[in-house]
Amino acid sequence: MYVIAVYDVGKKRVAKMLKLCRRYLNWIQNSVFEGEITEAKLLELKYEALQIMDEEDDSLIIFKTRQEKWLDKEIVGKERQNLDTFL
Amino acid sequence: MYVIAVYDVGKKRVAKMLKLCRRYLNWIQNSVFEGEITEAKLLELKYEALQIMDEEDDSLIIFKTRQEKWLDKEIVGKERQNLDTFL
Repeated sequence: MYVIAVYDVGKKRVAKMLKLCRRYLNWIQNSVFEGEITEAKLLELKYEALQIMDEEDDSLIIFKTRQEKWLDKEIVGKERQNLDTFL
Repeated sequence: MYVIAVYDVGKKRVAKMLKLCRRYLNWIQNSVFEGEITEAKLLELKYEALQIMDEEDDSLIIFKTRQEKWLDKEIVGKERQNLDTFL
């Protein structure tokens, strides 16, 4: 399945969340990631995220779609130089 | 069409971008919005965003899908109290 993940966490936890999400997905902007992931790997990601997050203050939103082609992406302004998505 | 919009702009421009995006979409997290929007309204939003943004530094990513049902949303952690999506 194809997902977009966006986190909103306290400053102290940003570096850890970034590192975690990059292990599973492609980084496309500040706190935004996307990529193909299995249900099992997504569960792992959520489990690990919860170890980092403060559940009272932080959030992680995941949008899932069964097929990448159902999602069109458009970037206005600066496009991140992204080696992650360099295939 | 249904869109998810995420901006990453300099601090000085955050308030304006937030206000702009809220006029067109529902606010779901920090810099993340979603909602049903027409092609014409989306063009308006992008045009207005470009008046606010510094194109060298800022970005606005828009994910589009033809049908909302093609996207599943899951929130881990804190859910924003959101009057926007209160119908």
